[in-house]
This record gives sequence, C-alpha cells and structure tokens, in this order.
Amino acid sequence: MNILDGKKIANQIKEEIAVEVAQIQTRGEKVPHLAAVLVGNDGASLTYVGSKVRSCKKIGFESTLIHLPEDTTEAVLLQQVADLNANSDIDGYIVQLPLPKHIDEEKILMAVDPDKDVDGFHPTNFGKMALDMETFIPATPFGIMELLRRYDIETEGKHTVVIGRSHIVGRPISILMSQKGKAANATVTITHSRTKDLQEFTKQADIIVSALGVPDFLKATMVKEGVVIIDVGITRVPDATKERGYYITGDVDFEEVAPKASYITPVPGGVGPMTIAMLLKNTLLARKRRQD
Amino acid sequence: MNILDGKKIANQIKEEIAVEVAQIQTRGEKVPHLAAVLVGNDGASLTYVGSKVRSCKKIGFESTLIHLPEDTTEAVLLQQVADLNANSDIDGYIVQLPLPKHIDEEKILMAVDPDKDVDGFHPTNFGKMALDMETFIPATPFGIMELLRRYDIETEGKHTVVIGRSHIVGRPISILMSQKGKAANATVTITHSRTKDLQEFTKQADIIVSALGVPDFLKATMVKEGVVIIDVGITRVPDATKERGYYITGDVDFEEVAPKASYITPVPGGVGPMTIAMLLKNTLLARKRRQD
Repeated sequence: MNILDGKKIANQIKEEIAVEVAQIQTRGEKVPHLAAVLVGNDGASLTYVGSKVRSCKKIGFESTLIHLPEDTTEAVLLQQVADLNANSDIDGYIVQLPLPKHIDEEKILMAVDPDKDVDGFHPTNFGKMALDMETFIPATPFGIMELLRRYDIETEGKHTVVIGRSHIVGRPISILMSQKGKAANATVTITHSRTKDLQEFTKQADIIVSALGVPDFLKATMVKEGVVIIDVGITRVPDATKERGYYITGDVDFEEVAPKASYITPVPGGVGPMTIAMLLKNTLLARKRRQD
Repeated sequence: MNILDGKKIANQIKEEIAVEVAQIQTRGEKVPHLAAVLVGNDGASLTYVGSKVRSCKKIGFESTLIHLPEDTTEAVLLQQVADLNANSDIDGYIVQLPLPKHIDEEKILMAVDPDKDVDGFHPTNFGKMALDMETFIPATPFGIMELLRRYDIETEGKHTVVIGRSHIVGRPISILMSQKGKAANATVTITHSRTKDLQEFTKQADIIVSALGVPDFLKATMVKEGVVIIDVGITRVPDATKERGYYITGDVDFEEVAPKASYITPVPGGVGPMTIAMLLKNTLLARKRRQD
C-alpha cells in the first residue's frame, strides 16, 4: 500500500509556482493577483478562504479578501462581481460557495467573467472542459488529475468508479478521466444516490473516486485487492477532545481499506491540499493568459 | 421485443410543433426561422441539410440555406456567422459539420451566438447542460432522451453503458442520463476505444447507447436478455444494387440482438428522425426565448 501524499505534491506545486512568481518579479512584471469574495460567516468557508489567502502570500501572489455581511443583497454582490471583472489588477477571483439562501448562485456564477473564473465553475469554462478545449479546470478534479499524473498511476483502460455526481467533483472528474490524455482514457462509471447496489460497481473498480461526504462509508468488503482510492470526502465530525471541536474525516474507512489498496489518499493530507494548489495554478495561468 | 419507433415519435413531435406554429401565425407573430450554413459539397452533409430545410417547410418554419463553396476562407465564414448573429430575423442556425480542413471548427463554434446555437455545441450551452441549467441540448442526445421518455422506459438506477465519447453523442448522453430527471438518474458507464474488454461492460448493461459507427458491431453474445438498445450508428455501406449506391446500417446486428432486447431502435427509423425533430424543437425554443 502506497500513500498518495497530496500534502507533499501540493507543496511541490506551490514551490514550482513560487519559482515562477520570483521570475515574474525579476522581470519587473506584475505578480498574479487572486481575489476571494466571501459572504457571511460560515465556519468552513472562513477556514477555506483564509487558507487560500495565506497560500497566496506564501508563494508571492497578491491577494484580496472581500468579506461581505450575511445580509448582502444580490444586487450588491452582482455589482461587486462587475467591479472585479472590470478591475484590471485582478487576474482571477472566486466567489466562495455556498452563498446565503436569498442570493441566486446561478445568477452570480453567470456574471463572473469566464477569463477570471479560476474556479472553472462558469458554464463556458465547464463546457470547454467537457469539449476538450483549453480552460480553467475546477480545482478539486484538477488536483486529482495532477496527483494521478505525478504518481504515474496507470489509468488508461482502467475501470474508474466515481461516487457522486456533484458539479464540483463527481461530474467533472468523470468527464476528465474518460477523455484522452494523461491520467485519463479510463472507462468511467458515474454512480450516485439513485444507483442500485453500489458495491456491485465499487467491487469491480480499478480506481475509486469517492465524493460522497459520508464518513467511513467505503468499507474493505466493497473494494477489490489492489484498488486505487481517491477520497474526496471532507466531513467535520464533532469531537469535544479536539481544540477546534471537530476532526476531519473522509468517505473511506482508511484502517480497513488501506491494506487492500495499491494507492490511497489520506484525509486530511490527500485531495484537500491539492485543491488549493490547483487554484493557485489556475491563477498563475490566468495571469499568463491575460498577458499574452 | 418492442421497436422504439423514432420515425413515428419524430412525426408526433413535428405535428406538435406544427400546431404551435399555426397558433403563432394565428396570433400574427413571426414564425421560427432556422438558417443552415453548408460549406462545400460533402454528400452526407448535403443530404442532412436538405432534409433539415425540407422539415422546416413542412411544419411552417421559415428556413434559409446558405451554401458556400468548398474554398470559402475562414474569414468569410466568420463574417457569415457574425451576420447571422446580428440578423434579428434568424432565431437559430447551424453550421453543418465537418467543415473543410482549412477552417478551424473551434474558432467558428466559438463565434456562434449561444442564444442562436440550436445545435447546442457552443461551450456555454454544453456547460449549462452539464451543470443542469436550461439550455439547448444537442439534437441527437435530446432525441434519445425524448424517445426514452415517450416510451416510458425506466432508467432510474439502471446501468447504462454508452459506447463512444464523441462531443455530439457519447459525452452529452452520458451526462444527461446520469443527471436527475425523467429518462435519467441512471448509473452510466462511458466506454471508448481505450476500454479493455468492452463486452464485460455491455453484458452487464440494462441499457446500451451505441455511437461507434461500426456496422453490425454489437452482437447477441455481448448483451443480456431484456436489454434496451439505442443504436446511434449511421453508416453508409456501399451497395451497387441500391439506386443511391449505398444502404444505411447501425452499430447493432439487429437480426441477432433484437430477439434478446426488450426495446430496440431500428436503423434507419430510430434515432435519426428524432435528431431532426429535436433540432426543430430547439429552433422553436429559440424563437420563444427571443420573444420573452
């Protein structure tokens, strides 16, 4: 059993980006600038956005955090998005989800300039991805692909079972892994809440990508010997013994499943750190494209 | 064994559209107007475009065929596309593929106004489809979904195996059938040229959508009893005994497979007629949306 060490690979990627940023500075050019818009005070969102901003600082990016109150109107947020689109100093930005219920997420998403949409969530970018065109790949599936590539995991002709059909993980990774290219060319089955007898599929899988959000869901009896496991689940389980009041766990019963796996991502330290690294990578790409 | 009679359903749909067109005329409003751009003299393309134009006439649409010579430059075609975007009389249009090799298809595609892209091939529309947003669904997968819906085929939780990952059939149908909704909620496996042991998958399938383009490829030994077969293959096989010099055949060995199938589309008369009907449906939708 080998660990797919997302933390290590993410640090490598961040170092590579930092080298590029240093070169940009040496040439006297503008460094990449990422902005993040956060509405309200959701705990997890605050943590994620904070982590993104800190990562920017570490690798030499400029970053701007726009923190708006929970009762921000849709109109105000749309104006904020329009301002970011118009602001030539910003190379890319994200609007942290979920948004408060009184705001139509789809409307906000459609207002983001696709050329600054480093989350890759805008339909134009998502469509380009599905049609094998160059674009911003959403950070989590992009991170999974990069992890597979850097560990040289054979995916061609392998049966990959994706658990979950969300717009940010299950759907894009099922598309990416079944396309042509490196870490791709897999035969992909997408499973979800309406799938009957899920373990009939997971038992056949050479590779499993689980993005379900149910702690310890995937058990040893559900996988075959030698499987590659990508655990995208990140659930906060309340735990009074921890200083922050919870611990983070994945979809996979790691203790049970790891001995049967050829490769497995830990949680935390697997896909999570890769997601932030790839957001930074997309921001660097945005900077370069705007310069071309 | 039941035939999924695409010709019959397509005629029903066209009749429904014709009724709506008659109502539009009665109200003194502008009827839907579809334009088709054809570059060069490819035999199959001429047939398809001719058939589309004739169908428009039959149901009361206006139609315009713009037939350009094989040596049309990319710049001239881009200007043509810009003119169609600007022409408020045109509700929707298609640029018939393939284009001559000296023209960059992606460049042309990106120039089409997504609101007039009744083929649903523009990344913005494709992305909206993948993200469960309202859009134009590409005509062939849209036709398959409509055929499944009108025959009330149970798809929820069923294992659907798609053969082929093309942008116009395999990819979109694999997305649509695994989404929420009617004729959807299936567990979908997408297979392709790099899939190992394809029949291991087809043998498990409750539903098979074949878009391979290899005549008589799917044999009885490759499917299970009771399977639903959607044959999207349309291959012209040279045949001197036919007046037009060829006959049309699908991916499925119909003689062998039909007796094992619960439902099966014939070729011709299955998915083909549905494709044209759904293009007309998209044009009607485009007209309505432009009016709103």
